[in-house]
Amino acid sequence: MSSKYVQIASLLRSQILKGAYQNTRMLPTEMELAQTHHVNRATVRRALSLLTEEGLIERHQGSGSFVKESPRTSQPHGTNIAIVTTYINDYIFPAILQDAQSVFAENGYSTMVFCTHNQISMERQILQNLDRSVCGLLVEGTKTALPNPNLDLYHKLGEAHIPVVFFHGSYAELPDAVCVSDDNFNGGYQLAQFLLRKGHTRIAGIFKSDDIQGHDRYSGFLSALRDAGLPFPDAQILWYTTEEKKQILTQGNRDLLQDFVKYNLPGATAVICYNDEIAFSFINVLRSLKIRVPEDVAVVSFDNSSFSELCSVKITSLTHGSKHVGRIAAEHLVDMLHGKTVRSEAVPWTLVEKESS
Amino acid sequence: MSSKYVQIASLLRSQILKGAYQNTRMLPTEMELAQTHHVNRATVRRALSLLTEEGLIERHQGSGSFVKESPRTSQPHGTNIAIVTTYINDYIFPAILQDAQSVFAENGYSTMVFCTHNQISMERQILQNLDRSVCGLLVEGTKTALPNPNLDLYHKLGEAHIPVVFFHGSYAELPDAVCVSDDNFNGGYQLAQFLLRKGHTRIAGIFKSDDIQGHDRYSGFLSALRDAGLPFPDAQILWYTTEEKKQILTQGNRDLLQDFVKYNLPGATAVICYNDEIAFSFINVLRSLKIRVPEDVAVVSFDNSSFSELCSVKITSLTHGSKHVGRIAAEHLVDMLHGKTVRSEAVPWTLVEKESS
Repeated sequence: MSSKYVQIASLLRSQILKGAYQNTRMLPTEMELAQTHHVNRATVRRALSLLTEEGLIERHQGSGSFVKESPRTSQPHGTNIAIVTTYINDYIFPAILQDAQSVFAENGYSTMVFCTHNQISMERQILQNLDRSVCGLLVEGTKTALPNPNLDLYHKLGEAHIPVVFFHGSYAELPDAVCVSDDNFNGGYQLAQFLLRKGHTRIAGIFKSDDIQGHDRYSGFLSALRDAGLPFPDAQILWYTTEEKKQILTQGNRDLLQDFVKYNLPGATAVICYNDEIAFSFINVLRSLKIRVPEDVAVVSFDNSSFSELCSVKITSLTHGSKHVGRIAAEHLVDMLHGKTVRSEAVPWTLVEKESS
Repeated sequence: MSSKYVQIASLLRSQILKGAYQNTRMLPTEMELAQTHHVNRATVRRALSLLTEEGLIERHQGSGSFVKESPRTSQPHGTNIAIVTTYINDYIFPAILQDAQSVFAENGYSTMVFCTHNQISMERQILQNLDRSVCGLLVEGTKTALPNPNLDLYHKLGEAHIPVVFFHGSYAELPDAVCVSDDNFNGGYQLAQFLLRKGHTRIAGIFKSDDIQGHDRYSGFLSALRDAGLPFPDAQILWYTTEEKKQILTQGNRDLLQDFVKYNLPGATAVICYNDEIAFSFINVLRSLKIRVPEDVAVVSFDNSSFSELCSVKITSLTHGSKHVGRIAAEHLVDMLHGKTVRSEAVPWTLVEKESS
């Protein structure tokens, strides 16, 4: 469940896009909105701020909030770009959003941000409400390792000639889609090679099962083992889903990680984690079970984020390329809007060695 | 870990295939084998029986065991076919094996059976040991919903012109592979439609995450919901892996199912299960939590196996087509060996309504 202000913003956004305020362009007052939604005015103000940041409305001191008129251009569908992401609160998201938004702004496009929480039900709702009110979409695929039930809506966008660029992951059923992601296969390969060079031969892994990044990182990891002539550690791979991630990270339910340490980890001397977020929780579980990092078990990971620095043992992690996925994806979308042909791209990682390995 | 006799059979099999006994064709005596492997003679006899059934050796009363001479034919790689399956003990496997073996026998081929336990490490070992000692393979893909690290070995088989037919599932990375499976997408669709017609609108699901059958059944289920205009139940889908299945079924660890019932199921009035095996365990968990089937929650499933009959509430389940996957897959492989072109096939399911819905 998202915060109340996000819900209110989301409702207003969809009303605006459906043309509910197209005559007067004037939104209800803060007090009216507060009464309608049973919240205080601070919450309403936060919702309106979000829509202002998205360039969807403008607020005039004293006279209220107004739907912004789209600048008239040659674009058949206006100049609004929708960014559909999985987690607004995700630790690597702000940088990506900032990058993308600045590219769009430089090119005269305004942006609206939507968030699926990695739920296909919300992805469907967002795509249905967008209708044809946007000229292009930047989409972080939702549950990209599973069959996607919203392809009909992506096909409709295609028929309406509204370009879509995916970032981080796209769907197997859309093999021609343009996608800009990190080079996850080679990232997994790099981390495994790093551990092999350090003398580890029994390496376990923790990966996300419903996002394609998890599959690609796992695949690179296995390829490195195979190329080194080592067996695959079937029983020492932990897979977790979006819903299990939520339980681990927000509800503090660490049973999954604890069971893995107790029943599957013994014998392994190193673990490759899907990202710093899960590595952070995992290292805490190891500590609580008196297993030392890196003396007993080395831990390496992806993203080189604040989690890597904040962890009791700073995490050896792959860092993103100097030119971020968000910027490249946004540039690709602008190119497509200008009629150019673009191609999918995988951005290489760089290893940053710290204390956990 | 497989039983001792399976291990001994596996070792002897690979020695035989490597030509270790090609001069005398005579295997060590039962007593010698018992001493070498530190087991009793009954275990050795069981291993030898397995190899006899596979047509790899013959036992002569009083004089010992001999490697069978392959009948000379025009086949460049002999007449041995390898059947590589995931679980020999799987409840639907005996029928498939019987079907396939009788097709091969009718056509003059002998068969050897290997078992990966759905582990890519064992799949690799089996394919490496096979070398070129077989003329064709019938393969039940291992962890088909994940990237496969053994493609190099499948490519080698292709280069040696040794045909492979997959059954139940093949790999996304081998899009041209011939595969005979049940029509899992339509099976999921059928089950959901059946529940919708009964008035259920909030349907949960339990699916296997690392086999493609799980993805296809999930995909059909979601499509039925979408076509009925219903939202997707992101939080009410439980995914389990091969390793978690083992914990649930053989170690009796039902935490995963119990947590699902407690935290995710509330609100749903029906559940589609991946197969009868998991449905059986799930219904037991529901009973232990005093939730009635079908009064409180309806349960439907795939396979219509003995589990469906043995369950305290007989399970409404999809039954396999009259012509089984094993038979069709074997016929396809024989056709390929005879130089014919064959195509992938999906065999339709039929619903058998019982007590659980």
